[in-house]
Amino acid sequence: MPPEASKIKPYRREFDYSYVFGAFAVYEIIKAKPEVVRGVYIKPGYTDAEALEALCRANGIPFFYKERLNAGQNESVHVLAVFGKYADELNAARPHVVLVNPGDMGNIGTVARTMAAFNLLNLAIITPAADVFSPKCVRASMGALFRINFRNYSSFNEYEAVFPGHTFFPFMTGAKISLTYESCPETPLFSLVFGNEASGLPENFPHGGGSIKILQSPLVDSLNLSVAASVGMYIFALKNGLMPSS
Amino acid sequence: MPPEASKIKPYRREFDYSYVFGAFAVYEIIKAKPEVVRGVYIKPGYTDAEALEALCRANGIPFFYKERLNAGQNESVHVLAVFGKYADELNAARPHVVLVNPGDMGNIGTVARTMAAFNLLNLAIITPAADVFSPKCVRASMGALFRINFRNYSSFNEYEAVFPGHTFFPFMTGAKISLTYESCPETPLFSLVFGNEASGLPENFPHGGGSIKILQSPLVDSLNLSVAASVGMYIFALKNGLMPSS
Repeated sequence: MPPEASKIKPYRREFDYSYVFGAFAVYEIIKAKPEVVRGVYIKPGYTDAEALEALCRANGIPFFYKERLNAGQNESVHVLAVFGKYADELNAARPHVVLVNPGDMGNIGTVARTMAAFNLLNLAIITPAADVFSPKCVRASMGALFRINFRNYSSFNEYEAVFPGHTFFPFMTGAKISLTYESCPETPLFSLVFGNEASGLPENFPHGGGSIKILQSPLVDSLNLSVAASVGMYIFALKNGLMPSS
Repeated sequence: MPPEASKIKPYRREFDYSYVFGAFAVYEIIKAKPEVVRGVYIKPGYTDAEALEALCRANGIPFFYKERLNAGQNESVHVLAVFGKYADELNAARPHVVLVNPGDMGNIGTVARTMAAFNLLNLAIITPAADVFSPKCVRASMGALFRINFRNYSSFNEYEAVFPGHTFFPFMTGAKISLTYESCPETPLFSLVFGNEASGLPENFPHGGGSIKILQSPLVDSLNLSVAASVGMYIFALKNGLMPSS
C-alpha cells in the first residue's frame, strides 16, 4: 500500500520503499518498472497532470494530490513516486559493470545513466556500498536506474562465483593495458570493474582479462569514478559492437 | 591581506577571494599557483601541520591556526586556503575546451579535473555560467582547477574572435559525426564545445569542424555533461597525440 499522502517521511535506508523526485524520472519508472510503483503524488497545479493521471490509471497505479512534496529534502518537487525496493537478476549472457564499494550515491546514479546510454545493462555492486535505492542515486541517474538490472553482492567472490563465464577487467592506475581503441580487448562477456572513489582496487585484484588503465597526465592523482567508468565503458562498447552504428 | 581568522565568512560570488577546502586541494593550489594564496588556515592537531607550515614559509604564505574551519559549510575541514581571484590567458597555440553556460559548479570542477588528466589545459567558459571560483567547483576539481588556464567570456562570439585559428567542434545530439576513434578529427587546434546541462547547444551553433555526437542508445535522453565531455576529450586527446603513450 502507498503511504498516506500526509505521511511521506524523509527517506531512510532501512525502508522497504524509496522515492523518485521529479516528473522526468517518475515517467521513467512508470514506463520501465510500473509493477514496483506504489503511488504517485502530484502537486496541485502541475501542468501535465492529466497525462500523468492517465498513465497511472493505465498501469493501475494510485495517485494523490499533495501541496508540499519534499519528503525531507530542501527542494519541493511537482511530482514524486513511491516505489517498493526490488531485486533484479543480472543477465549472464551480457557484459556487466561492477562497482566495488562505491561510496557516493551520485556516482552510482551517474554510472547507471551512462550504462543505459551505452547499452551496458547489468550492474553488480559489491557491498559495503552507498545506497543504490536512495533518492539521490535515482535522481543522479535521471531515472535510468530503472532501465538497467542491478544487484548487490556481499563480496567480489560471491559475484564471481555466479558468473564464471565473464572475463574481468579491473581498472587500476598501475595496470598493464593502457586503454586505447586499438588495445581495447574484444570479448563478448566482459565485466568492467571499478573500485572505490578514495581507495581504488587493491593491486592483487583478480584480473582474468588483464588490468586496464585510462591514460592520464601526472597533473592529477586520479579521475572521478563516473568519468573513469564512462570512458572505459564507451571504448569497450565501441570495440565490442554494443553501440548503434550512427 | 588574508582575512582575520575570526572573520572567515560564508563564500559569496561577489567576493574578490574564495576558499579551497581540504588538505589535498590546498597543496595543489600552493604548488600550482602560490602567488594567489592569501593565507592558509590549519586546525590545531592536523597531523601534517609541520610540512604544511614549511611549504607556506617557502612560498611566503601566512598561516594561522583556527579550531573550526567551515566558512559556512556544513562540514568542517582540517585545512583551508583563502585565495584571490585571478584572470588567466588561454594559450592560443593549444587546443581548448569551451563550456557554454554551464549551470552546475560540480560539473565545471569535474571537467577541469578531467582536462588536466587528459592534457587539455585551456578552458573557456561562456557566461552566464555557474561560478568557476566557487569552493564547490574547486572541490569537485580536487584542486586541478589551478593546473589549467580558464577564463570567462560573455559570448561565444567574443571567444571566437580571440581565437580565429581554432576549429570548433560542438557536441550535440543531432550532430553529423558519430564519435568513434576512426571518425575523430585530427587537427592540432581544436575547441571542443559543450552546452548547458538542460538545454545543450542550439542547432545553428557555429561548427567549423563539424558537429559531433557521442553514440548512445535511445534508453536515455542525454548524458551527464561531465561524462559527455570526458568521453569526447579522451578520444580527441588519443587521436591527436595529447596523451602519454603508456
